[in-house]
Amino acid sequence: MLATMLYAPGDVRVEERDEPVIQKPTDAILRLTATCICGSDLWPFRGLNDVSSPMAMGHEYCGVVVAVGSDVKTVKPGQFVVGSFVLSDNTCPHCRHGFQSSCEQREFMTGGQAEYARVPLADGTLIATDTMPDDDLIPSLLAASDVLGTGWYAADAARVQSGSTVVVVGDGAVGLMGVLAAKQLGAHRIIAMSRHKSRQDLALDYGATDIIAERGDEGVARVKELTQRIGADAVLECVGTQESMQTAINCARPGSMIGYVGVPHGVQFDGQALFFSQTGMIGGPAPVRRFLPHLLDLILTRQINPGRVFDLELPLADAAEGYRAMDERRAIKTLLRP
Amino acid sequence: MLATMLYAPGDVRVEERDEPVIQKPTDAILRLTATCICGSDLWPFRGLNDVSSPMAMGHEYCGVVVAVGSDVKTVKPGQFVVGSFVLSDNTCPHCRHGFQSSCEQREFMTGGQAEYARVPLADGTLIATDTMPDDDLIPSLLAASDVLGTGWYAADAARVQSGSTVVVVGDGAVGLMGVLAAKQLGAHRIIAMSRHKSRQDLALDYGATDIIAERGDEGVARVKELTQRIGADAVLECVGTQESMQTAINCARPGSMIGYVGVPHGVQFDGQALFFSQTGMIGGPAPVRRFLPHLLDLILTRQINPGRVFDLELPLADAAEGYRAMDERRAIKTLLRP
Repeated sequence: MLATMLYAPGDVRVEERDEPVIQKPTDAILRLTATCICGSDLWPFRGLNDVSSPMAMGHEYCGVVVAVGSDVKTVKPGQFVVGSFVLSDNTCPHCRHGFQSSCEQREFMTGGQAEYARVPLADGTLIATDTMPDDDLIPSLLAASDVLGTGWYAADAARVQSGSTVVVVGDGAVGLMGVLAAKQLGAHRIIAMSRHKSRQDLALDYGATDIIAERGDEGVARVKELTQRIGADAVLECVGTQESMQTAINCARPGSMIGYVGVPHGVQFDGQALFFSQTGMIGGPAPVRRFLPHLLDLILTRQINPGRVFDLELPLADAAEGYRAMDERRAIKTLLRP
Repeated sequence: MLATMLYAPGDVRVEERDEPVIQKPTDAILRLTATCICGSDLWPFRGLNDVSSPMAMGHEYCGVVVAVGSDVKTVKPGQFVVGSFVLSDNTCPHCRHGFQSSCEQREFMTGGQAEYARVPLADGTLIATDTMPDDDLIPSLLAASDVLGTGWYAADAARVQSGSTVVVVGDGAVGLMGVLAAKQLGAHRIIAMSRHKSRQDLALDYGATDIIAERGDEGVARVKELTQRIGADAVLECVGTQESMQTAINCARPGSMIGYVGVPHGVQFDGQALFFSQTGMIGGPAPVRRFLPHLLDLILTRQINPGRVFDLELPLADAAEGYRAMDERRAIKTLLRP
């Protein structure tokens, strides 16, 4: 089968590999319907993470089950499934508390940018749809695997509720999904910080009420202007740099929560400054599995259309071009069709 | 009148000063019934904060109103009042959100270790009792001014609820009040980290179910043992050092909240480590005013007895000995009678 391998920074190759097989009784094998490239895939592509040996890329996926291990009970061959990018048993104490992304058996999905993929902990990770979904829903269902679930978690972690004033820091795919989630959770005002016209437009379509193009202190000043100097009730931090985290803290009113889902790179917090800001924060890899049933329902009933975040679609064989397009910011997010 | 002044580290003097007068129409003047020494007063006493000129010490207070400014509407001369150590208008947006400690007009109380004190923003800061309270309730009412309200905020910030497993890091007065608050908020299990017999005993009296004497990694290991390796649902951090904050993070289960009320001194958080711990945190100076009506009700109806945290009572004139006793850990907390 074809699979996407990263050999070194900038060196993505789609090449012939063995098809995956059941290794454990809790595994499932999927024939992938669609997969995609994540912003986090760009870190090793850009040399920001080590690449010690060829890496099997891809952790966002949906497709049809072709085989299951002997212990798998909730999905069966022939079913269409969507799974979280974090593999979880969905039964341990952390899972039961809704934090499947800290599951005692947690693994991170790999090898999803391929024709077939092995999904460990299938029962705790995958959700099957009742019927084979319409093809036009595939991008949205794929988005639920990570980017939608992650934006949703940011809004949940920031405790967005009916009437909230929300700031979304970051206009990547996750930030845009954060806007969508905030809208669904009843936010009254959604301020999206974005400098790119196409992303601003999509943010507005997803429910943003205000766009702020300025960054850093200027961006914070604009948020303060828009909120009568109070700051936001909830902030979604969807970047992960020192500057973006500081912007999030400075936009947030005392007593608010920041949901941070951009994996922090080189970020340090000063304890005393954070203390006196009186802003709360919780982050981490998103427990997508918690939200997946609700998100699939919203998608299948066409209440939300997160799939619009994919603005480039390529055959799997052209994955390298997909990486380049995202690296050069020619695309927000690339969908790959095996 | 007598007032307590800090001239330099270790140099506390109780000396004759002018009585305070109304300076603004929102002020009240109190004749203090009782005041006390705070753990945070020890920072400048120990030379950890700068002391540039003689400082009027004391921010915890209760007493009888002797004069009010022309704008004061909710308290009047002759009434017994308790006030927050943070002065607030209780009307600004942050106050209305319950974060009076980030009030737009915030000031911190000073000069409370004296016979009389001026309380700015009296309407937004003070609560009057219906009648003159019994003398044996004075220590508890005084505790509400800061230490009880701060422990209560730690529990509230950590979202302690019915059935929670709670860890309290720190066995100072605030930590002990955190134990009391967790008990009142319905915690099922309260693990107090304490190495001192007298504090362990008081923690147990206030509702602790388990005592852990170990610190650092050993202490965390004991918490994990006691919680079937899950960690706590809520952690109250009542110290403010790098070690105590790290202990709090390591004790907390993914998805839990840490309420941190020990003012961080030299504390840095690594963003990525915090992210992957998936623990939430919110801290800051306690919005005592939010809790004050409820706390006074609990005290006046004798449902709680936070005043037991005072294990040394001295005349105001002997304040210097009170500082030394706390500095040398001979006392948990010193009450001063003007």
